Amino acid sequence: MQINTQLDQLFSALGDTTRRAVLARLCRGPAAVSELAQNFDMALPSFTQHLRVLEDSGLVMSEKKGRVRTYQLAPQTLKEAEIWLSQQRSDWESRFNQLDHYLNKIKEKHDV
Amino acid sequence: MQINTQLDQLFSALGDTTRRAVLARLCRGPAAVSELAQNFDMALPSFTQHLRVLEDSGLVMSEKKGRVRTYQLAPQTLKEAEIWLSQQRSDWESRFNQLDHYLNKIKEKHDV
Repeated sequence: MQINTQLDQLFSALGDTTRRAVLARLCRGPAAVSELAQNFDMALPSFTQHLRVLEDSGLVMSEKKGRVRTYQLAPQTLKEAEIWLSQQRSDWESRFNQLDHYLNKIKEKHDV
Repeated sequence: MQINTQLDQLFSALGDTTRRAVLARLCRGPAAVSELAQNFDMALPSFTQHLRVLEDSGLVMSEKKGRVRTYQLAPQTLKEAEIWLSQQRSDWESRFNQLDHYLNKIKEKHDV
């Protein structure tokens, strides 16, 4: 998948309270659909739709054994989101440091 | 704004290639609408709609002087997204360490 499409899906998937709560739960270990669903006051079809969005985004993986589908976190994808954000912050901080440096230069000139 | 609503808006705003490109640009310093728009092959109304979504999410701020509106990054909001993600990762890593500890215990038992 193209990196931009992947990031679109990834951040869009994170942009929903229910889906973030499911992820937070899966960060503490795998869980079956029924176990996940019981924490949410929502019809099962709506809930499984959220799980589908999470799986399509690559943030979670699922496996079916008999009648039970179990979900687990795909931590590498969560990492991709962190990498993108920290890259932006580092650009911003480096610009901030440049400004700081520039202001110090002006101040030095002024002090002389 | 409620924290969940804020995170919904924040991550949804990040879930679009154009909006991430605008943010990446603003991480390098403030810019006027016309300067931002020239990097995108898009009708101006569609582009300003993206800017509105970014501003509503709190990721950017704007200021109008005369006829020129200038946008700048609101770095604290970008930080909120990073904090949420790193919290999830820390939960996941602590679970992973617990599992590791548990497997080592089993291995020790087996080795005896």
